[in-house]
Amino acid sequence: MGAGAWGTALAKVLADAGNSVTLWARRPGLAEQINRTHRNADYLDVALPEQIRATSDPAEALTGACTVLLAVPSQTLRVNLTPWKEFLGADTTLVSLAKGIELNTLMRMSQVIVQVTGVDPSHVAVVSGPNLASEIAEEQPAATVIACSDSGRAVALQRALATGYFRPYTNADVIGAEIGGACKNVIALACGMAAGSGLGENTAAAIITRGLAEIMRLGIALGAKPATLAGLAGIGDLVATCMSPYSRNRSFGERLGKGGTMQAALDATGGHVAEGVTSCESVLALASSYDVEMPLTEAVHRVCHKGLSVDDAVALLLGRSTKPE
Amino acid sequence: MGAGAWGTALAKVLADAGNSVTLWARRPGLAEQINRTHRNADYLDVALPEQIRATSDPAEALTGACTVLLAVPSQTLRVNLTPWKEFLGADTTLVSLAKGIELNTLMRMSQVIVQVTGVDPSHVAVVSGPNLASEIAEEQPAATVIACSDSGRAVALQRALATGYFRPYTNADVIGAEIGGACKNVIALACGMAAGSGLGENTAAAIITRGLAEIMRLGIALGAKPATLAGLAGIGDLVATCMSPYSRNRSFGERLGKGGTMQAALDATGGHVAEGVTSCESVLALASSYDVEMPLTEAVHRVCHKGLSVDDAVALLLGRSTKPE
Repeated sequence: MGAGAWGTALAKVLADAGNSVTLWARRPGLAEQINRTHRNADYLDVALPEQIRATSDPAEALTGACTVLLAVPSQTLRVNLTPWKEFLGADTTLVSLAKGIELNTLMRMSQVIVQVTGVDPSHVAVVSGPNLASEIAEEQPAATVIACSDSGRAVALQRALATGYFRPYTNADVIGAEIGGACKNVIALACGMAAGSGLGENTAAAIITRGLAEIMRLGIALGAKPATLAGLAGIGDLVATCMSPYSRNRSFGERLGKGGTMQAALDATGGHVAEGVTSCESVLALASSYDVEMPLTEAVHRVCHKGLSVDDAVALLLGRSTKPE
Repeated sequence: MGAGAWGTALAKVLADAGNSVTLWARRPGLAEQINRTHRNADYLDVALPEQIRATSDPAEALTGACTVLLAVPSQTLRVNLTPWKEFLGADTTLVSLAKGIELNTLMRMSQVIVQVTGVDPSHVAVVSGPNLASEIAEEQPAATVIACSDSGRAVALQRALATGYFRPYTNADVIGAEIGGACKNVIALACGMAAGSGLGENTAAAIITRGLAEIMRLGIALGAKPATLAGLAGIGDLVATCMSPYSRNRSFGERLGKGGTMQAALDATGGHVAEGVTSCESVLALASSYDVEMPLTEAVHRVCHKGLSVDDAVALLLGRSTKPE
C-alpha cells in the first residue's frame, strides 16, 4: 500500500520471492503506468516483475490479501489506514514499512496500526534495516529485520521476503525495530552538519556512536532490547543513513554545516524538508515524556527550530563534562 | 613509547592538556629531528608543542614517568617491553595503545603487558576509540574510551588526556575495549572487498552490523560487556575504520574486490600487508578456542589465506540459512 520507492522495492522483492503481489498507488495514472510499462519512473526506475499488478483502488488491493505492507509516510499512516480497515481480513498480517513517531500522539507506527484497526498487536509486524530502496531494486545484497511478537507470522514473512539478494532476520522485539528507524534521520542530520563544517571520520563515528547510545537509552525506557538496537534495525540502519551520499537528511545537514540558513537549505531542496527536521520534534517530546536525555537530538532540534548555529551546537556537545561511557 | 602516527598524536594531546611529555622514538635521528623541528615529518606532519621532548633512550623516557603509553605495533609489544620493565616505577600506569591479539599466545595486549612486567592488572589501562591519528593531530573533535579496572587510574588518565578537541570517556571493561580494536581491521577488509565488487551502502551497513554481532559474540565469550562493544571502542572504531577512505585495510580489501590477487594488492602497497590480513589469523584462532562462530572473519581469512575468490565469499555469506537476528 504505497508506490513510493520503498513500497515499490518491496513489491519487487515479494514478486521475486514468488508471491502474488498487488501494488496500490494513490494516483490512477501511476498505477496505469506501472501496469503498462512495468516500471515506476517517478520513484524507482527499474524493470519490475510482470506479475506485479498495480491498482489505485484500495478495495481491490486489500480484499483477500493475507499480508498487507503499509508503505505510506509515517505522518499520514493514520489518515490513510482509517478507510482501509473495512477491507482487511480477520487474520491478515499488517506490516509497517513507515519509520517515525506520530506527532501529537507520540505513538510508534505499530501502535497507530493497532489503534486504527483494532487488531491484536501480534498481527502487526515491522520491517526495518539498512535498506536504501534503489540498491535493493538493483538486487545488491542487503539484510533486514522482520519484527513481530508472533514468531509464526515473523517466519512466514521471512519466507515471503527471502530472495538471493534480500536476507531477512526475524526478531520478536517490535519496539526496538521501530525506535532505530524513527531516530536515525535526526542523527544523520547531525552527521551532515559535522561533515559540512569540515569535520572528519572521527567526529562522524563519535556522532554515530553517541547517537546510538541515546537511541538505546530511549529504546530501553520504552521496553526495547539493547541487542535489537545493536543490530540491523538500529546501528545498521543508522550507519547506512549517516554514511550514504544519497541520504536527504545527511545532505540537508551538510548545507546547514556549510553555513547555510534553514531557509537556504529548504530552497536548495525545493522546499522539501528533510524528515529528521520534523522527527526531531516528536522524538524529543517522546524522550522527554520518559525523562530520557538525548543531547544530540536536542542539539539538532535547537539548530533546526531555535536558531542555534552549527558551530555553537558542536561547541556545546564537546563542552559537556567528561564522564563514564 | 613509540613515535609512529598514533604515539605522536597522543603525545601532542598530553602536552596540549598540560602534561610534561617525553616521546621515545626508536631511531636517534627521528628523536633529534622532533627536538629540532618540533615536527615528525615521517609519520604525522603537524606542528608539535615545543614542550614535547623526544629521546631514543628508553631509560631516559621511562625513569620517573607516572604514566607510560605503549604505542608500538601489537606483534612487537612483547619484545619491546621486555627490556623496558627495569625502568618502570612501582606505581606507574601502563597504557596500551596497540590493537591486536598476539599470534601464537592469542593474548590481548593488556595480558601481554601484565605477563611481561608482572604488574597488577589494575595498573594497566587501554585507550581505544574512533581515533584516526591525522584528524586528532589537526585538533578535530574526537571521543575515545579509557578502560581500566581501577577507576581512580581511569579518571586520572581521563583528566590527563582531556582537551578542547579530545573527549575521553572512562570504562571499567578492559576486555571489551581491546576486542573491538583487535577485530575491526578484518571487518574493514570485508567492507573494502564489497565496495571493490561494486556493492553499495546497504551491503556495507550489513557487513558492519553483522561484523559487530560476531565481535560481540567473541567479546561476551571472553567476558566483555556488550555495552562497551556498542560504544566508542566497539562500533565507533569499527565505523571509522570501515568508512574512512584513508584506512589501509579498507583500500587493501577494495583492491581484492576489484579482482586483484593478494600478490597484486601487496605489490600496490609496496609489499606492506594490511593489518587485518595478519589479525584474521589470531582472531579466528581465539574465536575457535572459545567455540565462537565468526563467519565474516572466516570468509576474509579464506580469501586472504586460502585462495577463495571475493565473489564466492559473498555468495557463501548470503547463502547461509535465514535465521533469527
